Amino acid sequence: MTHDSPRKFIDRLTAGIRAKRTPLIVGIDPHFEFLPAPFRNTVTAAIDTQPGRAQAAAACTAFCNEVVQIVGPLVAAVKPQLAFFEQWGPPGMSGLFQVIQRAQSAKLSIILDGKRNDIGSTAAAYAQALLGPGEASAFGGDALTVNPWLGRDSVQPFVDRCREVGSGLFVLVKTSNSGSRDFQDLASTDRRLYEHVAVMVETMAQQSVGADGYGDIGAVIGATYPEELAELRRQMPHTVFLIPGFGAQGGRAADIACAFDARGLGAVVNSARGILFAFRRESPQANDAHWETAVERATREAIAELAAATPAGNLRTA
Amino acid sequence: MTHDSPRKFIDRLTAGIRAKRTPLIVGIDPHFEFLPAPFRNTVTAAIDTQPGRAQAAAACTAFCNEVVQIVGPLVAAVKPQLAFFEQWGPPGMSGLFQVIQRAQSAKLSIILDGKRNDIGSTAAAYAQALLGPGEASAFGGDALTVNPWLGRDSVQPFVDRCREVGSGLFVLVKTSNSGSRDFQDLASTDRRLYEHVAVMVETMAQQSVGADGYGDIGAVIGATYPEELAELRRQMPHTVFLIPGFGAQGGRAADIACAFDARGLGAVVNSARGILFAFRRESPQANDAHWETAVERATREAIAELAAATPAGNLRTA
Repeated sequence: MTHDSPRKFIDRLTAGIRAKRTPLIVGIDPHFEFLPAPFRNTVTAAIDTQPGRAQAAAACTAFCNEVVQIVGPLVAAVKPQLAFFEQWGPPGMSGLFQVIQRAQSAKLSIILDGKRNDIGSTAAAYAQALLGPGEASAFGGDALTVNPWLGRDSVQPFVDRCREVGSGLFVLVKTSNSGSRDFQDLASTDRRLYEHVAVMVETMAQQSVGADGYGDIGAVIGATYPEELAELRRQMPHTVFLIPGFGAQGGRAADIACAFDARGLGAVVNSARGILFAFRRESPQANDAHWETAVERATREAIAELAAATPAGNLRTA
Repeated sequence: MTHDSPRKFIDRLTAGIRAKRTPLIVGIDPHFEFLPAPFRNTVTAAIDTQPGRAQAAAACTAFCNEVVQIVGPLVAAVKPQLAFFEQWGPPGMSGLFQVIQRAQSAKLSIILDGKRNDIGSTAAAYAQALLGPGEASAFGGDALTVNPWLGRDSVQPFVDRCREVGSGLFVLVKTSNSGSRDFQDLASTDRRLYEHVAVMVETMAQQSVGADGYGDIGAVIGATYPEELAELRRQMPHTVFLIPGFGAQGGRAADIACAFDARGLGAVVNSARGILFAFRRESPQANDAHWETAVERATREAIAELAAATPAGNLRTA
């Protein structure tokens, strides 16, 4: 953000729209297979190998940098699509960074199309990664696309970041694909929205069931809503559940017993902070020197709690 | 994927759960401020600068690698949270790659918690980035968390990838946060779900309005649903719209005229493929040598189309 730029993203964007006299923005979506031959031809390794991915990332980056130079005088903003950079792994993300720097030099607003979202401190980490012009964030975006599915408290950390660094958001309200009708358009129905999603997931899971009766498409269902968990278990007999919210977020082992079948299968239970940072809980002075012991002990304790209070205690090698 | 591993993610996961006799998985969420002092102390630059971010990425990576070594013998899977790596920019994503490689060496299943989603070829690019064990994908995940808000056709490219490379998904059905009630729990209501999201976004936009009457929190609304666009424009007077689906996806300039106010403000219109790859349309033989000319011409044509068919033709410098 240069000294004379407006403080608010929306004012910087509007100034650019007025100066260029168009609301058009250019999406930076470098599909590799569509690149002009001079760029594609620099890739000599197979693009499903790591050396090929690094070459493809370089080709896409070089192409995007030239596109930014061409469209820079004509439009107010570019919208890089993060998937087409993430596709190539770390070299792709380095390429994204370079393209953003080129767009900053061209005085363009940068709307990062990442459709990110998560909850609490995780949403804040995405916001710190992506939102904040110039050096204020890791990638230097002026605005970010955000997915609202997780609710208001998942969008709020992004909003807070916007107010802090003068950036902006675009929340996915009504998307352009035909599937936007599936959930976004629902109104009066006989069940709650997540149950519609549950039906879709169970159907997908049934299409490819493994040796123990569960499919390859699972569901994330929080430990913090045990009644909903029990009902979803009945509705989704072929779907493996990933259960977050165990431990630090307040979910208890007894609450999630219903997620398992009698063999102890059907769910995995995630614990993060309660294990990684157990050393901080064990000692008010945070005995950092013994953090490894605390990690191992917390892991063993969580395993024992699940074995005692859920059918996980019945797990046997097949 | 080693030669003797089961082909399906779900079977590899279940084999690991049985062998370790627990459904516990460990979330790899390296909050920098919680790291043990020996790791935090390696960071000497400010963490809101690029050198500090590189140091913080290295510290988080070193910590996560040790955690993987400690928990590897105890659990079947780890779940790296992508936000805590993306937070540090390209060095963070390189660190994620290293942590995944360490987890692969420890024979752990790797569930990447990215909560990704997008439509069509963009969803496919995320799937190629993240799904596919070992060298099969850029990052080498066994499974990925996916957000369902965009509908069935947005989840399907991830499902297709799973069937291709033997990986898995966990779709966000009912999340653990309190905000999961906001949209996921809705059932019988007087309006469609996206209109609930619209109310939230308009409220957030009103909290921080710029010089021209629009807030910093915008909405993505596809050009392909002109009636919904017009109705949302009435319901969201302080919200700037980002309109995708113009050009390649079939949205026309006349369809989106209602998104603008009389000054030509209130919306930005994205075109990606129609501009970047215009050279492929101009010539069946794809005259790659003149792709720059095609990019510039396509940009100018899109600008002219918007100026002719929408109030964008009224844009003036303030």
